[in-house]
Amino acid sequence: MPSPLRNGDAAHPRLPSPAAPTPLHHHNHNYPSFRSTVSEQKIRRLNLLILLLRLAAFCFSLSAAVFTAANSSRSASSPYSWLSVDSFRVMFAANAIVAVYSLLEMCASIREILHGATLLPEPMQLWFDFAHDQLFAYLALSAGVAGATAARGLSGCTADKPAASFCVQAYISVALGFAGFAFLALSALVSGFRVASFVLTGSRFPLQ
Amino acid sequence: MPSPLRNGDAAHPRLPSPAAPTPLHHHNHNYPSFRSTVSEQKIRRLNLLILLLRLAAFCFSLSAAVFTAANSSRSASSPYSWLSVDSFRVMFAANAIVAVYSLLEMCASIREILHGATLLPEPMQLWFDFAHDQLFAYLALSAGVAGATAARGLSGCTADKPAASFCVQAYISVALGFAGFAFLALSALVSGFRVASFVLTGSRFPLQ
Repeated sequence: MPSPLRNGDAAHPRLPSPAAPTPLHHHNHNYPSFRSTVSEQKIRRLNLLILLLRLAAFCFSLSAAVFTAANSSRSASSPYSWLSVDSFRVMFAANAIVAVYSLLEMCASIREILHGATLLPEPMQLWFDFAHDQLFAYLALSAGVAGATAARGLSGCTADKPAASFCVQAYISVALGFAGFAFLALSALVSGFRVASFVLTGSRFPLQ
Repeated sequence: MPSPLRNGDAAHPRLPSPAAPTPLHHHNHNYPSFRSTVSEQKIRRLNLLILLLRLAAFCFSLSAAVFTAANSSRSASSPYSWLSVDSFRVMFAANAIVAVYSLLEMCASIREILHGATLLPEPMQLWFDFAHDQLFAYLALSAGVAGATAARGLSGCTADKPAASFCVQAYISVALGFAGFAFLALSALVSGFRVASFVLTGSRFPLQ
């Protein structure tokens, strides 16, 4: 049963041997090696889920940062720039931090999927992931709320066309920041489950 | 296998029967009843910890709500009132909601400690606690950030004495709201651990 995931068998010490079948929902307790294979597959799926959540968080927070930083327009009466509103600067900084963090975590996650070993020692890596997910989710939420408060307080949004486009772009970047927060909060949930599972049972995914 | 440590069996329906197999990480196969008593004590301690965290969250968010709602002063030039600032109204509402929630959860927690049974069926109760802790922590953080943004943007804080006291009281209520958020976030961590432990091992605190 060749599959792209099985190409690097030599580099995957935890992968099953080619002879072992890999049923997905396996309830036969007579074959302990099968059991660990099933559990191993679940860990891989959990890692893929976290990778996808991080990818989404990265995309949304990167675009929020870019949209915020590109938000300036010049009208006849006065120039509008994100640099003149403190909360938009906070939003840019927070979303940029979240994007960089998500990118690094994605690299670490891909490296783990390919090489089968975590960058840091496993318990430290799990705690690191969960703590930073949680903290950066709070950071992204704070930045989003601050940006929303500032965007709501913008005056003169109906004055002329440049002013209106400045306001609309501010709303869009706030919404993108909230989407990034949502995916980061989900990945904090998953990595929190993972660390609790590791603390309680010594394995990241002991459920059958 | 009767033992003096099993006195409260009638009041603790969650204790395993002597014949029941004990959960994971069981290192003393000769004294299951002794072990379950130890685990029962740990569950009680965990419940007490959550109760204390909720008490702190209740105190801080109640005082934040009261301080916010009592914040109005009248000067010769103009009246200052929390009702005229949207974000302060949000802060009052959010902190009041958090205070009411913490109070209800404290009642449920005390009832559980006294009677040994949860209000809802146990899994539902654990999920309810964790989900609401997490959601209300996000709510309290959002309200705190919105209030902080508004308090920072208050103008005329140095105009006269009523204006200055209005600003100072706004800062204090924001700080109280953040303290309430911190304790709620901690209790979300603990109840998240509790629900993960229940899902993974069938018991709320299987660690020796």
